[in-house]
Amino acid sequence: MSFQISIGPNLRKSAFFNATVQSGVQGFSVYNHMLIPGHFGDPDAEYDRLLNGVAMWDVAAQRQVELTGPDAGRLAQYLTPRNLTKMRDGQGRYVPLCDHDGWLINDPVLLKLAEDRYWLSVADSDIHLWAAAIGRERGWNVRVDEPDVSPLAIQGPKAVDVAAVLFGERVRTMRHFAFEETTLAGIPLILARSGWSKQGGFELYLMDSARGSDLWSMVAEAGAPFGIGPGAPNDIERLESGLISYGADMRWQGARANPFEMGLGAMVDLEAGHDFVGRAALERIAAEGPARRRVGLVLDGRPTPPGHPVPLAVGDAVVGRVCEFAFSRRLDRTIGVGLVQADLLDNAEGLVTMLEAGAVPTRIAPLPFGKT
Amino acid sequence: MSFQISIGPNLRKSAFFNATVQSGVQGFSVYNHMLIPGHFGDPDAEYDRLLNGVAMWDVAAQRQVELTGPDAGRLAQYLTPRNLTKMRDGQGRYVPLCDHDGWLINDPVLLKLAEDRYWLSVADSDIHLWAAAIGRERGWNVRVDEPDVSPLAIQGPKAVDVAAVLFGERVRTMRHFAFEETTLAGIPLILARSGWSKQGGFELYLMDSARGSDLWSMVAEAGAPFGIGPGAPNDIERLESGLISYGADMRWQGARANPFEMGLGAMVDLEAGHDFVGRAALERIAAEGPARRRVGLVLDGRPTPPGHPVPLAVGDAVVGRVCEFAFSRRLDRTIGVGLVQADLLDNAEGLVTMLEAGAVPTRIAPLPFGKT
Repeated sequence: MSFQISIGPNLRKSAFFNATVQSGVQGFSVYNHMLIPGHFGDPDAEYDRLLNGVAMWDVAAQRQVELTGPDAGRLAQYLTPRNLTKMRDGQGRYVPLCDHDGWLINDPVLLKLAEDRYWLSVADSDIHLWAAAIGRERGWNVRVDEPDVSPLAIQGPKAVDVAAVLFGERVRTMRHFAFEETTLAGIPLILARSGWSKQGGFELYLMDSARGSDLWSMVAEAGAPFGIGPGAPNDIERLESGLISYGADMRWQGARANPFEMGLGAMVDLEAGHDFVGRAALERIAAEGPARRRVGLVLDGRPTPPGHPVPLAVGDAVVGRVCEFAFSRRLDRTIGVGLVQADLLDNAEGLVTMLEAGAVPTRIAPLPFGKT
Repeated sequence: MSFQISIGPNLRKSAFFNATVQSGVQGFSVYNHMLIPGHFGDPDAEYDRLLNGVAMWDVAAQRQVELTGPDAGRLAQYLTPRNLTKMRDGQGRYVPLCDHDGWLINDPVLLKLAEDRYWLSVADSDIHLWAAAIGRERGWNVRVDEPDVSPLAIQGPKAVDVAAVLFGERVRTMRHFAFEETTLAGIPLILARSGWSKQGGFELYLMDSARGSDLWSMVAEAGAPFGIGPGAPNDIERLESGLISYGADMRWQGARANPFEMGLGAMVDLEAGHDFVGRAALERIAAEGPARRRVGLVLDGRPTPPGHPVPLAVGDAVVGRVCEFAFSRRLDRTIGVGLVQADLLDNAEGLVTMLEAGAVPTRIAPLPFGKT
């Protein structure tokens, strides 16, 4: 099944929209009310560039929720169970966000630009509303905004070579999640060593959407000797690497999960003295132990992905959820991620993925799937 | 330009997804993280059914934010500037929601199911996060949830005949926005006289997503003698009727507007004694007068809609925004809606819509455009 996307003024266009059209984008998805490229017509080539070369992705839909003002740090800390005490300017950090009952509502990267200025680089939910409601209802002196910032990712083992051409050799020693404010031919941006893959790379946070096509062209040109090409966040690589996809793996609406279930328990700092949203609920869950656990899955054969989560069962009993699966050419098997009842981890005999076409024998595998 | 939509597990499928595929859906958009049909391949027929017959729309993406508990009414009232004092069970009401600075963040219909149970039938932003943050931070005894509810709309002058076949002749006397809980062949639903058009009709709030295809079939069968056919919320009709489209006409992110600018000032009750989010800001705006006003627009000729908002200008000066425009066959002209500086309303000489292809002479027209 193939359907058109209806492009109207209710969906925002990325700063790189025109550039991706000129680069041959074939499909879009929608993320944070913005069009985001889905693919450029050659999935195998796009995957290979990510694994062996370098790919460039329009990820402007990864919007920034900016917190500014004297209480910006206070609000940032209150929004996440992760301890931010030692965070320094120029550092990013992966910060799960929970609601008051401990359910995950987003899993952004937090960038600390200054003591009084933070960005939450968010997955697909309206965290600006969440953060603004909390900041204002608490009477804190902090402003919540969406600045004109559009990330462009370069990902893959050769991404560092492209970044070195553009920004100089110093980029080779940047640490993961480190970032710096800089310019490229007068284009203001933040250069961060980050990105939604495990192949390494950088994100260029463009700070002037009028320059989207210019930045896209400069990156394409600098990357040409390394075989750069357009692509998009890659579902197969993310399954292989065990990356979390908020919206697919869990979502507040209908597919809730807490950080302990998702394997993010180490980021929940219950020893710290500070308060944060969901603390009481997370203390209770920590004491009881999570009801489900995130797992890797291997499915028999090569079933067609249904495009939505499906039940994981033993016999007729639903014991979990397969969030997403896909065939990995590299691993030569069908892999997925899901949630399964914690009490089944030691004895998961007879697991099946429930597809419309029938039940597919399934086994649990450690995450990430790795290279073999 | 035509692009595919990438359908993956990160986008939710409606309870009517399979039914719309079988009915020949050709395009989708995304609304509240859910696929929503865009069109079924014959825009003229879809428009004609809405204006002269009856259309059925999958609007399950119009999600419900449910408020339950002793403080549900208190929270509902705090969320909107509209006075809810006289609202009775079984009534719906259009309620603008603002942030603490008075900017609109959604414009749902509020359904009062009971003193301690309300639904916000929301446009495209995550009001569950907003409402939950405010309820919990205030320490109120109210639960915020997304129930299993999927609206199916039947719209058009013959919608009432279809509803009468399904639910009985009593539906003919239901008032606008009235609703009642009922069943249809055992399918639990709420029947409301409402919908996002000015052609009249009903929304069937399906309360068991497993019965989506069943309900779709029953409506299609009951509507067959009246020429019912599938369609989707219709941009041309909404422009003719002056309906607001949150996300297109305004959006917290990047295209903010307040209720006074949007012509919703009558719904802001500053005389009432109760507090609500944004009250202080709205009092200030009411005293100063809004900086911009929502207007109808008529564009010369038949320019191609760009699929995104564009500037409205006088000479080189940007004086507003054209949110959306389209050619109306019925009115035989290109009509749109937009925002323009309030001080220009009495003297809007030389207005142009700024398209890439050039400036298009434009004049202000009253909303709705009406029948002539």
